[in-house]
Amino acid sequence: MHILLLIAHGSRREASNQEVREVARKLEAISSSRFDRVIPAFLELAEPSITAGIDICSEAGATDITVVPYFLSAGRHVAEDIPENLRKAAKQHPGLKIHLRPHIGGHDEMPVLLFQSSFDEE
Amino acid sequence: MHILLLIAHGSRREASNQEVREVARKLEAISSSRFDRVIPAFLELAEPSITAGIDICSEAGATDITVVPYFLSAGRHVAEDIPENLRKAAKQHPGLKIHLRPHIGGHDEMPVLLFQSSFDEE
Repeated sequence: MHILLLIAHGSRREASNQEVREVARKLEAISSSRFDRVIPAFLELAEPSITAGIDICSEAGATDITVVPYFLSAGRHVAEDIPENLRKAAKQHPGLKIHLRPHIGGHDEMPVLLFQSSFDEE
Repeated sequence: MHILLLIAHGSRREASNQEVREVARKLEAISSSRFDRVIPAFLELAEPSITAGIDICSEAGATDITVVPYFLSAGRHVAEDIPENLRKAAKQHPGLKIHLRPHIGGHDEMPVLLFQSSFDEE
């Protein structure tokens, strides 16, 4: 069983966290050929935390987790905090394979998406 | 003359601001059919500010500016701070047409990009 864990920063503003959960829901709808579920998690300020998110994946029966960081830049959160949290979680779940992907802001297609966004709603 | 202004939050970490400038450079390279230039600007913590960015566009000869907010969620920055800064700038440049687009995190194709990101580098 393969689960995608979408990690966002988390916000004090609950509507922002809900927006991430909605993106995760849409991502789950289009990615069912590859992932059994998509679960959102948050580095801070919102639930579930990264380690709690991994627990949820494990309890759901995951053998593989692909982690996509929903961050625009490769700051300390992406370079240090997320990997550290994943290492902690991996120790708790030694059988689980965790595959960490690059942050979304570094994706080659991001400029294309921004270009598309400049056209919308005209 | 039509310029795209890519507005990011801005960071104390200069490498993050450089990452935004690099995205703007790539966006300029693929969008030349529509935009004469792409200029990055920052809400805070980095230069140019939004109003300085609009000044740069105006000095470059822009008649139209399309603004794309490089933000993942529609928080106060997107809903209030960016429009307020644009209103201030518009007052200084009454001939300029400023077209504000939705934040990138709300784009319908973002889940598709996240799905793509889950595959990369395997």
